[in-house]
Amino acid sequence: MKCEIIAIGSELLTPWRQDTNSLYLTERLNQIGVNVTFKTIVGDRRKDLASAIRTALGRADIVITMGGLGPTGDDLTREAWADALGTKLKRNADLVGQLYARAAQRRWTLTENNLKQADVLEGAEVLENPNGSAPGQWLDTVYAGHRKLGVLLPGPAREIKPMFDEQCVARLRSVLPTRFIATRTLKAAMIGESLCDSRIAPIYTQYPDIETTILAGAGDIQITLMCRHSSIEAAQARVDELASRIEEELDDIVYSSQNEPLEQIVLYYLEMRGVTLSVAESCTGGLLAQRLTSISGSSRSFVGGAIVYSNELKTEFAEVPEELIEERGAVSREVAIALADGIRRRCRSTYGVGITGVAGPMGGTEEKPVGLVYIAVSDGAQTEVVEKNFFGDREYIRTYATQQALDMVRRKLM
Amino acid sequence: MKCEIIAIGSELLTPWRQDTNSLYLTERLNQIGVNVTFKTIVGDRRKDLASAIRTALGRADIVITMGGLGPTGDDLTREAWADALGTKLKRNADLVGQLYARAAQRRWTLTENNLKQADVLEGAEVLENPNGSAPGQWLDTVYAGHRKLGVLLPGPAREIKPMFDEQCVARLRSVLPTRFIATRTLKAAMIGESLCDSRIAPIYTQYPDIETTILAGAGDIQITLMCRHSSIEAAQARVDELASRIEEELDDIVYSSQNEPLEQIVLYYLEMRGVTLSVAESCTGGLLAQRLTSISGSSRSFVGGAIVYSNELKTEFAEVPEELIEERGAVSREVAIALADGIRRRCRSTYGVGITGVAGPMGGTEEKPVGLVYIAVSDGAQTEVVEKNFFGDREYIRTYATQQALDMVRRKLM
Repeated sequence: MKCEIIAIGSELLTPWRQDTNSLYLTERLNQIGVNVTFKTIVGDRRKDLASAIRTALGRADIVITMGGLGPTGDDLTREAWADALGTKLKRNADLVGQLYARAAQRRWTLTENNLKQADVLEGAEVLENPNGSAPGQWLDTVYAGHRKLGVLLPGPAREIKPMFDEQCVARLRSVLPTRFIATRTLKAAMIGESLCDSRIAPIYTQYPDIETTILAGAGDIQITLMCRHSSIEAAQARVDELASRIEEELDDIVYSSQNEPLEQIVLYYLEMRGVTLSVAESCTGGLLAQRLTSISGSSRSFVGGAIVYSNELKTEFAEVPEELIEERGAVSREVAIALADGIRRRCRSTYGVGITGVAGPMGGTEEKPVGLVYIAVSDGAQTEVVEKNFFGDREYIRTYATQQALDMVRRKLM
Repeated sequence: MKCEIIAIGSELLTPWRQDTNSLYLTERLNQIGVNVTFKTIVGDRRKDLASAIRTALGRADIVITMGGLGPTGDDLTREAWADALGTKLKRNADLVGQLYARAAQRRWTLTENNLKQADVLEGAEVLENPNGSAPGQWLDTVYAGHRKLGVLLPGPAREIKPMFDEQCVARLRSVLPTRFIATRTLKAAMIGESLCDSRIAPIYTQYPDIETTILAGAGDIQITLMCRHSSIEAAQARVDELASRIEEELDDIVYSSQNEPLEQIVLYYLEMRGVTLSVAESCTGGLLAQRLTSISGSSRSFVGGAIVYSNELKTEFAEVPEELIEERGAVSREVAIALADGIRRRCRSTYGVGITGVAGPMGGTEEKPVGLVYIAVSDGAQTEVVEKNFFGDREYIRTYATQQALDMVRRKLM
């Protein structure tokens, strides 16, 4: 089965934005044996949109559009599908009722524009959207003598993902031939991409039936293994075998074999050991805390901490002696240690993390250049500290520093 | 003039990779007045590729392909162009000579495969590639009775960019009518997309020569205006006029007319007024501080603050009375006020922000459901507080809450 994904929105044809949601859909589609053979990006013009849908229906079995289901004048996906299929839209009374109820709940005034979100293609089923006002649509139809599946999804990622997972995957499975794809994603921290590849290539090249992909982020490596087979057990056995051999080779550099983010792994360990963590962040300015608290349930092990951007706050919240900052400078090994130990005491947590550095692009000196970051972890008895020189922009340096901190906590807990 | 960009390569249809080179080309094309109306991503199958090129020739004046010009078996772009145009490839003797010279220089053995890089479409000009072995091609032809320009570029960014800038831009300019594009991007906070559109649609629809795009995020609206004209001054005057009228209508809801993020605007205001800010974050867990510190130079006005995830830390770092938390609960109007005021005092900043709420998906009760967030801003003399019920997932609720906080600070400073 061939699938074409059409991402809709004039903003996706500017130099500043690009479709990323199709990556998620592609992953899900691959898992149920569907190949994406074309992706098209088209603006909010009804004529262009209808032409793109017509072209897609001519060359793919499944056509998924993303976007253009909102209430504004440039949301024209429903109309364009009707044009492409030569069919009509009908206003759905249930959906109109839901729109009124939703607006009332939020104390919004419903405009005439809003109501077009209740227009449904003839013969289409409604896909409910608990995360937004625009419902999706599912169409099983015949176009130019061939059976075609059409899926109208909204544009925002947080609406697309649950709608596709909960309402489209099962519908697709019921019409697809049984084909199974097993995947495994290993994640590794603080190792370079080419070093990682040179260590594992001799292993994964022995598995030509498995597609191995290596992707690198800031201090983060993702190794994805994918195997297609007529039985899920056989496919799973193959990827599991290769995953084990890679884990053996990389040893404790691998922090997850199920694609969890590093912050989640750290929270697992903390909870398992019944211990707690606090952080004092200077150059990362809350990014580490933000990563930890992005995980639901993090309050069980993460108590909080301080953003100690100014020197005064380093003293106020993490008890760093003023003289130490004066003597060694705010960006120093000693201040990182004092931050980690001080925040741990103040927060009465088992572990404390301290980060201080130069995130750039301004503020670097010859002695303390942009990218220089000290990261310390204290458990009361002892404090470990590392000095790092990260290369990249502000965001990259900050992300890398939090990655290093999380990995140090993980290693302490292992 | 309409342009379609086709990115070629099966890896661009996996969940892990995507075309980014088209963003660069789009920027360059816009600068010379060319609109990108479609982008297509297609794999390395000759039939699919030829069909994509044919479709593009049918709906665009300029068709640019990227990739598939290398020496391997799955490099089929030349052949697909020939299929689409019903024309032939001719081996170019000069190019064959260059390939041999290049191989000799690098002590490579030239295989028969390598030589297909010397195949040129009938009537095409060769675009030299000093950064790789695969030359590009430039085609000025007639397809189905219309003049079409075809450009065959290689795949790697470092080959595409110089080839396009040095050999294609001047060629395009010479056949294009002189046209310029001016853009403006307005940003607005804490207004619904449809309410925003219903207020400004009566204005922007009076400017049919300007393409208006509205994009919505969590509490954030981006309005992009784009105008093409034969003079850059005229184009700029048109978008500036419309921008002024939209600003007038939306008044202080617009926080930026130059596409800056809200956190940057807040930092501008703080610095302009010579005042400082601190934050005490519970449910947003550092996200607000992270947004502020993502801007270089933020340390001039943002001093820091605390992540007060646990009740103890609310007392420890922001002086929230224990009794108050017991009486009113951690998620309450009173605690938000106490957080804002307490963190301001502790950090000795001009303003303090306090945020407490239920980010979910767990932890909601009937009385205090997921999405309930209190946000307070204190200036010492008085504290403003709002209660919000945000709908969405954890990330959305947290982002929305920080957006509300930033907007409240902005309004205080206006």
